Amino acid sequence: MCPRPASTSLNLDGETLLCQIRLLGEIGVEPDQDGRTRIALTDADKAGRDQLLRWMDALGLEVKIDRIGNIFGTLRAADDQQAPLMIGSHIDSVANAGALDGCYGVLAGLAVLRAYREAGLSPSRPITVAAFTNEEGVRYQPDMMGSLVYAGGLDVETALNAVGTDGTRLGEELARIGYAGDLEPGAQVPHEYLELHIEQGPILEAEGLQIGVVENLQGISWQQVTVKGSANHAGTTPMHLRHDAGWVASSVISQLREIAVDGTLATAGCMRFEPNLINVIPRKATFTVDLRDPDEARLQAAERRLAQLVARIADAEGVEIQSAQWVRFQPVVFDAGLADAIEASASRLGLSHRRMTSGAGHDAQMIARIAPAAMIFVPSQDGVSHNPREHTGDDLLLSGAEVLLDVVRHRLAQP
Amino acid sequence: MCPRPASTSLNLDGETLLCQIRLLGEIGVEPDQDGRTRIALTDADKAGRDQLLRWMDALGLEVKIDRIGNIFGTLRAADDQQAPLMIGSHIDSVANAGALDGCYGVLAGLAVLRAYREAGLSPSRPITVAAFTNEEGVRYQPDMMGSLVYAGGLDVETALNAVGTDGTRLGEELARIGYAGDLEPGAQVPHEYLELHIEQGPILEAEGLQIGVVENLQGISWQQVTVKGSANHAGTTPMHLRHDAGWVASSVISQLREIAVDGTLATAGCMRFEPNLINVIPRKATFTVDLRDPDEARLQAAERRLAQLVARIADAEGVEIQSAQWVRFQPVVFDAGLADAIEASASRLGLSHRRMTSGAGHDAQMIARIAPAAMIFVPSQDGVSHNPREHTGDDLLLSGAEVLLDVVRHRLAQP
Repeated sequence: MCPRPASTSLNLDGETLLCQIRLLGEIGVEPDQDGRTRIALTDADKAGRDQLLRWMDALGLEVKIDRIGNIFGTLRAADDQQAPLMIGSHIDSVANAGALDGCYGVLAGLAVLRAYREAGLSPSRPITVAAFTNEEGVRYQPDMMGSLVYAGGLDVETALNAVGTDGTRLGEELARIGYAGDLEPGAQVPHEYLELHIEQGPILEAEGLQIGVVENLQGISWQQVTVKGSANHAGTTPMHLRHDAGWVASSVISQLREIAVDGTLATAGCMRFEPNLINVIPRKATFTVDLRDPDEARLQAAERRLAQLVARIADAEGVEIQSAQWVRFQPVVFDAGLADAIEASASRLGLSHRRMTSGAGHDAQMIARIAPAAMIFVPSQDGVSHNPREHTGDDLLLSGAEVLLDVVRHRLAQP
Repeated sequence: MCPRPASTSLNLDGETLLCQIRLLGEIGVEPDQDGRTRIALTDADKAGRDQLLRWMDALGLEVKIDRIGNIFGTLRAADDQQAPLMIGSHIDSVANAGALDGCYGVLAGLAVLRAYREAGLSPSRPITVAAFTNEEGVRYQPDMMGSLVYAGGLDVETALNAVGTDGTRLGEELARIGYAGDLEPGAQVPHEYLELHIEQGPILEAEGLQIGVVENLQGISWQQVTVKGSANHAGTTPMHLRHDAGWVASSVISQLREIAVDGTLATAGCMRFEPNLINVIPRKATFTVDLRDPDEARLQAAERRLAQLVARIADAEGVEIQSAQWVRFQPVVFDAGLADAIEASASRLGLSHRRMTSGAGHDAQMIARIAPAAMIFVPSQDGVSHNPREHTGDDLLLSGAEVLLDVVRHRLAQP
């Protein structure tokens, strides 16, 4: 084998990027599932992290891990005093997930650094690739936790004390898998932040576009609603004498479309009846509502409509309803200059594009609290995500990475 | 201690009856629950059965157990060739149950036999107290299984092969707890059948009555409905592009009151979303529908309305819906002569009463296939059953048992 000749310009090694996406996607695949499951701080997440660290080491990056387990791989610059340009996302997953959500952005960040390495160039300021802990929030609340802690929005001790759906404490699991670092979260504020991600929605595909220039991000409101009625025999209790928690929960969910007007999204993803027996009127029903809107006033209006609906039904049915806010993030407006730079790169590369809103939450929204940030999207086939059918064609994946590399090159004023 | 003097007439020993109800109700009480859990063929059910057998032995009854585990305790008659008058119910329970559902009827049957024993009288035909297996149907389907098999409505081999919600086979569990008898089910057809039970509904209490003369019983239709939609990201999928299985299931449930017109009852007791994650549109939702009506034509009409509703929503939402019938029993009309006899006894004893329909299913409806049958109800406080708050005052419990004894006395033409 002969070493590759050093190039004098920055070129994307697309083959390595696609290969790393595939290899990372093989970690956490279970025998009975199509998808992979690397829920934060499980053994599978550790295996994914270990793989990422091996690739960071192979690139000769300076690797640091902070107290919440965020991983940073930095390519040092000629002038090491400057704040880094950060490229980030996450490698944890939901259950039975696709291979792209999060991983694509982290590995495309490595591809940018690989381009610098292979060109034999030092960047004009450090470039850091970040993989943030527990973006998905499946096991520990809130989601986007690592970037939230990094941006100072959540105290690290509080995060370490988070108790998971399985009763575990986050800090103990983090130590168990060997990723409780000693770096203080947020010790280094990035100069600016870029995140490349699949859209996880149908818009780019529907419009036949290659690149999304993400200029803002929806606000998110997560509530858990608990309805307490009265259990009773299904065969003997007249319909008008019931206090049926299951019927109340179902009625609220069936009316969520009236809550979700003017573009607000409303989803009931979780539902549970108790005692959950075929011939017993449910005593208790618990469900979740996920509301999203890019406009804070509209999001608040949807929250008010939901509260009014819940109160009206509770009153009419003689049940008790409690709502608990699990997550509440205001809409985020990304840095306009950075979005302009992404748009300019897409144009320069001859890629079709549009400016758009992110429907999903991303680590970028947390980092936007402390530094200029923006995102690049590529299309998701059928708009599918959080599902083994999540897919984006190789050409589109490489186009997104080319845009990322081009933006970095121009931000750092390099060839 | 001196032996009690033999009485020449039949008198109810109310104290022993109430005491036995309390003692049987203590079996299966778990530390963290108010109620007791003696689900069919569990260790707790075995403990309840063992207690019942000890009481049957103490009364000197001839005890037999059939192949499906039904327990029969018989007081022999002077003329042993005659078919027995049978008094029956069940001692299995739902999870976290009250102490009366089923047990009251079986123990009141023992109280009738105790009255004969203490009076030193032989009945003019044998009297059998029956405790039927798996009336509740919590673990193994269908419910009322023991009496259904006894009445020839279900093959005993099929019943023994029933697979439980926990994956166990009924026949193995029956043998494990030592209640796989050798009597062929239905070997002895009763002359007639009486069942005393709490109402499990609010009617008698609401009308301030002491005794219900149950002349018929609702038909029951149990279905499991499975909705298959598409999982997708809650934050990126526009409302009009969703195939939300959870929303569809909730919408059907919220419209069950339009299915349940003209007195039909409709209940959704079980519900499950998959993947059941807050930010994922449900791919699949499964729920149950319990429909009841004393009129077969009305019950069928409700089933048709439900099927139409489900088909209409499935079509509009682009989801696939499958319905599986779990249980289907036609309404039962009890023996009018036996109901007249119950009414006459209530009148004779000066107890307020009304003729009524049973909303719940009972073993009596199965035995009605092979012998004249009818039921006696006492009020349920607040109409509550299948719940630790299930309650009937002692006076009412004793009134019901007095009616049962009086009916037996008159059917057997004894003092």
